[in-house]
Amino acid sequence: MKYFVLGSSYVVRLDAGEKIIETLRALCERDVIGSGFFHGLGAVNDAELGHFDPATGDYSWTKLAGPYEIVSLYGNITVVDGKPFIHAHASLCDRTFAARGGHLREAVVSVTCEVTLTRFRDDITRKKDEATGLFKLALDPGGE
Amino acid sequence: MKYFVLGSSYVVRLDAGEKIIETLRALCERDVIGSGFFHGLGAVNDAELGHFDPATGDYSWTKLAGPYEIVSLYGNITVVDGKPFIHAHASLCDRTFAARGGHLREAVVSVTCEVTLTRFRDDITRKKDEATGLFKLALDPGGE
Amino acid sequence: MKYFVLGSSYVVRLDAGEKIIETLRALCERDVIGSGFFHGLGAVNDAELGHFDPATGDYSWTKLAGPYEIVSLYGNITVVDGKPFIHAHASLCDRTFAARGGHLREAVVSVTCEVTLTRFRDDITRKKDEATGLFKLALDPGGE
Repeated sequence: MKYFVLGSSYVVRLDAGEKIIETLRALCERDVIGSGFFHGLGAVNDAELGHFDPATGDYSWTKLAGPYEIVSLYGNITVVDGKPFIHAHASLCDRTFAARGGHLREAVVSVTCEVTLTRFRDDITRKKDEATGLFKLALDPGGE
Repeated sequence: MKYFVLGSSYVVRLDAGEKIIETLRALCERDVIGSGFFHGLGAVNDAELGHFDPATGDYSWTKLAGPYEIVSLYGNITVVDGKPFIHAHASLCDRTFAARGGHLREAVVSVTCEVTLTRFRDDITRKKDEATGLFKLALDPGGE
Repeated sequence: MKYFVLGSSYVVRLDAGEKIIETLRALCERDVIGSGFFHGLGAVNDAELGHFDPATGDYSWTKLAGPYEIVSLYGNITVVDGKPFIHAHASLCDRTFAARGGHLREAVVSVTCEVTLTRFRDDITRKKDEATGLFKLALDPGGE
């Protein structure tokens, strides 16, 4: 991973074999990025996508071997338990060009992945929602 | 809906039962946001997607019950008749992970929806295009 | 194509018959934009999408007549050989609302296309990667 900083923005290149979520989390930890958002494109293998079913309160997961183009990748950055937390959704296409997408747990860069990331000044945290077990953005007054 | 303002950016959390377009429009009205763009992720039910056919000059619509992951959501903010106007496109995935998308008329948050929004300083308006009946961005000199 | 400049951001309207990639490249050349990113929505015909297969080192391409909604469009701007270079991925939906996507070589606006573009101050270049033949972001120290 290599990156270039332009004010509050980053241009990031992830290289073959690097895990997207893990690598972006490491960048946020290194540069103490406590909130922001990012987009990316490129190509991946071994992606894991999730779909949350509110009726069961659980994610179902699928593993996609690839090779895939990243058709869209958008995520946000927050802080949970003092560590950067990446929440990203993505859609991926194989050689049929059909798009498959969902919550992106992880994917491994196959050729390259190009990310633009905008950091904010302040930390934004998450708090566990007891009803769903999910960590939701803590934006309520008083940090709730 | 809760939000956090960071300079010219907003981080917004929409909660279960809230309509995405209606809620973002209300935020823009409250904070007098006259232009900008946003992205989002999360999960929705009861989405309505449109596809415009230039040959007929009409949208065809589909209603999707869900539950869906928001795979991508991008929209812009303008002002029409003195009111904020939201133009958004989205793609959604069900448990098969197949992506369906189009012009997003509305969707109801099922669990959470997380939006990052960047506001611009100036208002941007739209003007009705007589040929198509659509409100297009009024960026011509003199506001045409 | 018409556009409105707001600080380091552009709001761009592409009109019927304009090619998206070619038109954005011309805007970047005219305004000397050496790095940045953009998103768009709208409707197109005659899109060409690519899928890169790392095993063969080649793209496979498909031409889609349309009409299509642009469900997502994200790209970055760099400089190659002194000229603006646009790298964009997109997903498109026809009247069945099924999303198809990939590397966007080009597409022709059918009704309108609305783009928000953020420019950075510095140029970012690309360098040919001998292993793949692709032009990758040159973000290494020393510009490698």
